[in-house]
Amino acid sequence: MPLYARALAALESQGRFVVSSKELGEAVAVSDAQIRKDLAYFGRFGKQGRGYDVQKLLDELRRILGLNRQWRMTLVGTGRLGRAILGYEGFSPQGFRIVHAFDSDVGMIGKDVGGLTVHSTEDIEKLLSEDPVDIGIVAVPAETAQNVIDRLVKCGIRAILNYTPVTAHVPDDVQMKRIDPVLSLQGMTYHLKAASGA
Amino acid sequence: MPLYARALAALESQGRFVVSSKELGEAVAVSDAQIRKDLAYFGRFGKQGRGYDVQKLLDELRRILGLNRQWRMTLVGTGRLGRAILGYEGFSPQGFRIVHAFDSDVGMIGKDVGGLTVHSTEDIEKLLSEDPVDIGIVAVPAETAQNVIDRLVKCGIRAILNYTPVTAHVPDDVQMKRIDPVLSLQGMTYHLKAASGA
Repeated sequence: MPLYARALAALESQGRFVVSSKELGEAVAVSDAQIRKDLAYFGRFGKQGRGYDVQKLLDELRRILGLNRQWRMTLVGTGRLGRAILGYEGFSPQGFRIVHAFDSDVGMIGKDVGGLTVHSTEDIEKLLSEDPVDIGIVAVPAETAQNVIDRLVKCGIRAILNYTPVTAHVPDDVQMKRIDPVLSLQGMTYHLKAASGA
Repeated sequence: MPLYARALAALESQGRFVVSSKELGEAVAVSDAQIRKDLAYFGRFGKQGRGYDVQKLLDELRRILGLNRQWRMTLVGTGRLGRAILGYEGFSPQGFRIVHAFDSDVGMIGKDVGGLTVHSTEDIEKLLSEDPVDIGIVAVPAETAQNVIDRLVKCGIRAILNYTPVTAHVPDDVQMKRIDPVLSLQGMTYHLKAASGA
């Protein structure tokens, strides 16, 4: 679904008004039958033989996916990876804004990184109760990951983006997604090996 | 499967010899029934009531997944994101090594970034034919992503790690995984919205 919204936004910026399920399918590498099935679930947007109204479908998808609003995020961990996350330019155009940064390293606390003052991880509970966020981004060393995630969940955060190499545990009502390039690579090497017969 | 290997490596480094399917399941957030099912597929490692031999299972999983060897990678795009990828310390301990870096920006070409000399993207075909790699990492601007991926595929690369915000197309015999934190966030906001009733 987020992919559909992204493809539609690209079409909109090209000044397109109507798109066929076939063309939308090609843009997101999905069959047009699958497109019709997925979008049918969200109501009737398309007309047989006429295609989808780009603007209408995009507005509706954005509303359904919660992309028509700002989401506030907190970042824990301002090491090399955390600083790269703070410098990532892809978040804000999509409505995602990092509003605090925390670190446990006394050498980092108080410093300005990417326009934010780094707070001590000891102040996570205090700051998040005064200034709540929707999403927590965790970029701490593996050994402290579960502890940090537990604390964010206790602060009421219901969505975690986990950049650590750890399979952390969260309650059923908390969403967690991992960003782990090594895991992605390891998911491909099995097939590479099989293909080469090695 | 890569998650099992990672959990087993952690147990091995703690000096453990045997692990139960229940304990391994907890480490990767999977039911012990699923563990037994997954591992049964790869042959008989466990003994009823005795658990799995950590070292034996880890060696076998590494062999099956192709984690017992070095994988050579090439990076295209040495902007802010590409430089963060070059600086990422998680690849080499897992056997993944970036051996070339390319950029189309004349201001970057010839520079040393993370110990590698940046080559012109014009030289992709030449350098990859002299010095082939297994995996391509793409961190170029969205508008050039498909073109770069097509060129890497033509050079014989069969696995692509795509850091661009683009749904690129690859032949069926090429693996591609996306690393896109915004897509991961958008996959969670739908649920956040539903939970808050907003």
